[in-house]
Amino acid sequence: MIDTDIGGRARAGEMITAHGSVPTPVFLPVGSQATVKTVTPEELEEIGVRMVLANAYHLYLRPGTDTIARMGGLHRFMNWEKPILTDSGGYQVFSLARMTRITDEGATFRSHIDGSEHSITPEGAVRIQESLGADIIMALDEVPFSQDSPEKVAAAAERTLRWADRCRKAQTRSDQSLFAIVQGGLSPGLRRQCVQYLTSLGFAGYAIGGLSLGEPKDIMWRITEETASLLPADKPRYLMGVGSPEDLVTCVGLGIDMFDCVLPTRLGRNGAVFTGQGRRNIRNAIYRQMPEPVDKDCDCYTCRHFSAAYLHHLFKCEELLAYRLATIHNLRFMSNLMCRIREAILNHTFASFQAGFLAAYQPTDENMRIDQKRKWLKAQEHHIGEEKY
Amino acid sequence: MIDTDIGGRARAGEMITAHGSVPTPVFLPVGSQATVKTVTPEELEEIGVRMVLANAYHLYLRPGTDTIARMGGLHRFMNWEKPILTDSGGYQVFSLARMTRITDEGATFRSHIDGSEHSITPEGAVRIQESLGADIIMALDEVPFSQDSPEKVAAAAERTLRWADRCRKAQTRSDQSLFAIVQGGLSPGLRRQCVQYLTSLGFAGYAIGGLSLGEPKDIMWRITEETASLLPADKPRYLMGVGSPEDLVTCVGLGIDMFDCVLPTRLGRNGAVFTGQGRRNIRNAIYRQMPEPVDKDCDCYTCRHFSAAYLHHLFKCEELLAYRLATIHNLRFMSNLMCRIREAILNHTFASFQAGFLAAYQPTDENMRIDQKRKWLKAQEHHIGEEKY
Repeated sequence: MIDTDIGGRARAGEMITAHGSVPTPVFLPVGSQATVKTVTPEELEEIGVRMVLANAYHLYLRPGTDTIARMGGLHRFMNWEKPILTDSGGYQVFSLARMTRITDEGATFRSHIDGSEHSITPEGAVRIQESLGADIIMALDEVPFSQDSPEKVAAAAERTLRWADRCRKAQTRSDQSLFAIVQGGLSPGLRRQCVQYLTSLGFAGYAIGGLSLGEPKDIMWRITEETASLLPADKPRYLMGVGSPEDLVTCVGLGIDMFDCVLPTRLGRNGAVFTGQGRRNIRNAIYRQMPEPVDKDCDCYTCRHFSAAYLHHLFKCEELLAYRLATIHNLRFMSNLMCRIREAILNHTFASFQAGFLAAYQPTDENMRIDQKRKWLKAQEHHIGEEKY
Repeated sequence: MIDTDIGGRARAGEMITAHGSVPTPVFLPVGSQATVKTVTPEELEEIGVRMVLANAYHLYLRPGTDTIARMGGLHRFMNWEKPILTDSGGYQVFSLARMTRITDEGATFRSHIDGSEHSITPEGAVRIQESLGADIIMALDEVPFSQDSPEKVAAAAERTLRWADRCRKAQTRSDQSLFAIVQGGLSPGLRRQCVQYLTSLGFAGYAIGGLSLGEPKDIMWRITEETASLLPADKPRYLMGVGSPEDLVTCVGLGIDMFDCVLPTRLGRNGAVFTGQGRRNIRNAIYRQMPEPVDKDCDCYTCRHFSAAYLHHLFKCEELLAYRLATIHNLRFMSNLMCRIREAILNHTFASFQAGFLAAYQPTDENMRIDQKRKWLKAQEHHIGEEKY
């Protein structure tokens, strides 16, 4: 099912799930709380979205696993009959929940919503995700903080391996694919050990976790490259929490098949829209009287129906429609980008496509980007971030 | 063009505008800032909306009349090619702007957005609305406050008459219909004087303004009834800022053809949804695990695709999609209600329809309603209301 570009590592494949097939490389919009913020399932379909991510941590706390099961499972609950991946909630337990205590048994934490105490074990994470009924489910992992000592990073990686094994043994449904997560921080040695152990157990797919948490992009890319090169060729490789358009184009070239990130939706709600030349801020005065769409090369609903001036006006007025229109544009940009990437791989022209894209696309200034990311992570730690991962 | 029910005053008609015809009675959703909050033009069409209201005061301040004119006019700017009515901004100048000073010449006020000083005259109000290009435009009026003395109410009514005459003389476009506004507070005598003067001048339609501002419903209905009965039979009668489902059903029976109100959209964003039995609060725990739609008799997008449990979940999470889904439901409820009203009038069964509707529909408790309305008006006066009229 997997084709590669000549002389490169970019792969084009297809994942078969109980809710249909998913061409890869693929980008998954984030719908943590059983909704991709601001848009309906029909809009996701029109945008060309093939699979969405939901979050077991969020849904376990609210509305509760039991409620979703009673409503017929996550697909029916959110009225999305295409494939879904649920994250185990490992990342949220460590980044969003309060007073988290970890033992080998599992994690105890307080809800970020009401402070209530909960425990999660690897077996529990699988049980929750089986109850939600996503097509791909994730093993519970321990995500180290970027400032953790090498010893703590190593201990978290080792616990992640033991937990992955327990998740595998706890799985009872055969219609869901269980993916393991490779941790190990920025240590190539730890990453290698994790890959060796997890692939010896055998999983339906492998994720690379714990990246894009404030480290420079070149380091993230190097760890991704090294880790991806060790993963089996016949299984999907999923880089979690990544990323930007330039990350996708780059990391597909490093052998990655799947991505998820809040970036296009969150940026959209903040008025930042993607174009082939880079991000643009629609609040900028140059858009005040622009009769053309914000991105003249775009075929999304927003660009087909509204001027940049109108979108600018809606953002200035803080009108709710603004957030939806920008979200639709950014998700369509990502969807079109993944289609073009896949086509280039299949045509064996990926290398030139990549070079052309990266030459035209002006990424956000690296220092500003890291600064923004750290501020946001810090805000999350202190629970003052208005948006939830 | 106007048919009436036998032995009653309810009328079914049709208004012809430059952007198509509008069957009456009709309810206009409010899109003050060139957007009906949360929904797209396509969604308004699917809901069955025939005409929307936009606000000259808001659009004059932001994005500016000039910007909209340059973008091809209001219809093209907001991508709504069906009829539009613009309110002159009289109500907003008195309720929303700061430090308003009124002379016979016009009103001077400070913007509620940035405090900048502006002046508006009757001639200016027409010029702005001609520039925006709506199908129906409103004369500038002076809206008295409910606590004003009889002398102030009378002075405001008399000034409104002089301003209406000036608006009529200032009109230059023949493709827009200019409506005059009857003021006069809760005084039947003043209302009568206004009607006599305005009808002697002759306008394309007549609005009843200055009601639904905190007075009891029975008083509002009585003033509406008395005023409507004095208005010419062959011109549209528009009750401004009204209202609730029970208001529409009642006031059509008093001879009103047109309504506008923020109620369905604002209530929707607050989680209150209309049903044939009355308003329901979707945040209520009884909806937590309800697999049925919030209104089993409804054919709107929301009720066709989502359970009450899902809508409840979205509201609990403060997800932006919640506000849209509830808005769509409430607007569809209003649209269906107006269709049923019109059909009943044409079938000469309006009286029994009205009785049946009012028997089934449990209105919000009158004291709570007045209390809510006064609080909201007070919040507006102090500019702390998060929502804009």
